[in-house]
Amino acid sequence: MNYPQPLIELIENLQQLPGVGPKTAERMALYVITKLDEQDVLKMSKALIGSKQNLMYCETCGNISETPKCSICRDETRDKTIFCVVQEAKDILAFERMGMFRGQYHVLGGVLSPMDGVGPEDLRIIELLERIKEMPDAQEVIVATNPNMEGEATAQYIQSVLVNTGIRISRIAHGLPVGGDIDYADEATIMKALEGRREF
Amino acid sequence: MNYPQPLIELIENLQQLPGVGPKTAERMALYVITKLDEQDVLKMSKALIGSKQNLMYCETCGNISETPKCSICRDETRDKTIFCVVQEAKDILAFERMGMFRGQYHVLGGVLSPMDGVGPEDLRIIELLERIKEMPDAQEVIVATNPNMEGEATAQYIQSVLVNTGIRISRIAHGLPVGGDIDYADEATIMKALEGRREF
Repeated sequence: MNYPQPLIELIENLQQLPGVGPKTAERMALYVITKLDEQDVLKMSKALIGSKQNLMYCETCGNISETPKCSICRDETRDKTIFCVVQEAKDILAFERMGMFRGQYHVLGGVLSPMDGVGPEDLRIIELLERIKEMPDAQEVIVATNPNMEGEATAQYIQSVLVNTGIRISRIAHGLPVGGDIDYADEATIMKALEGRREF
Repeated sequence: MNYPQPLIELIENLQQLPGVGPKTAERMALYVITKLDEQDVLKMSKALIGSKQNLMYCETCGNISETPKCSICRDETRDKTIFCVVQEAKDILAFERMGMFRGQYHVLGGVLSPMDGVGPEDLRIIELLERIKEMPDAQEVIVATNPNMEGEATAQYIQSVLVNTGIRISRIAHGLPVGGDIDYADEATIMKALEGRREF
């Protein structure tokens, strides 16, 4: 005896989710079948396909949006002179939660990674250059890629592309996380924290 | 800025899955939106609702089935004199994988758990009693609930219900798992392994 076909199909399909292998998918599928109401499963099913059909990428910044232009790009009260370049759309939410940045965003859609075959043409770097050229008031680009090897290489590359635009290009600071312990920090972080020290 | 509504709905709905909290649901939802093809998401969506609409519990044994009577209960070549009582339908698959048991199953749908408000009337114990009464050839009931407190209490209860039927009632053996290390085993397991020792 094997599982019935609809159960096998559900197990296989759930494995598309990140971090879900065969065992987890099996546990999830059995839970769906034995514990959840049909109404709730219908809702989940609709939410899945609805998220694909009703969401798109903002044509300007690349943010996830319900409309061709996202709510940040449409917001006339936001500063049009400063751009924060992030790897992924979800990084925008992290900045927005913090709430102090009132400028524009630009989503790269990844980082340079020769190992994974990701080159500059796979990222939205040309679009960034064009956006800035079209903005005579543009003053600064903050590169907020992740503080790891790929993120640094990508930041360097963006700097090299934008250097002739005359715009100010900055990189978010590296250092000890707020609330962190020095004795738990790795050496690279401590080195960056030392390098980036500022006078009182 | 918050996430757009379809994304929020997906994050909320994915949290219905076991082991998926807000952070995991967010990661999964963003993955669905940014990395998966619409076709694949449509398939997953259909598999979810299809699993609810096309599966049922076998009216005889309680196994998950595509038909009112499951493939095991329909199989005329299987032994009708011996019954294996399991907690959940998924336990049947574990026995079937092992492949040496050719009798019938009976799914309880849980175990006695006064803390969670699960009493005998919530389990398929009456159904078991009736099944056995209708089977004049029935010879043995093997109680294969899990080897923990609730499983033992449930096994004891089933024994007390069936004792007057004159049928043989057995409990699966406890002991060291095959391939296990004695020095990793807990004391309760070692005690059970000692109690259950057999002569060569």
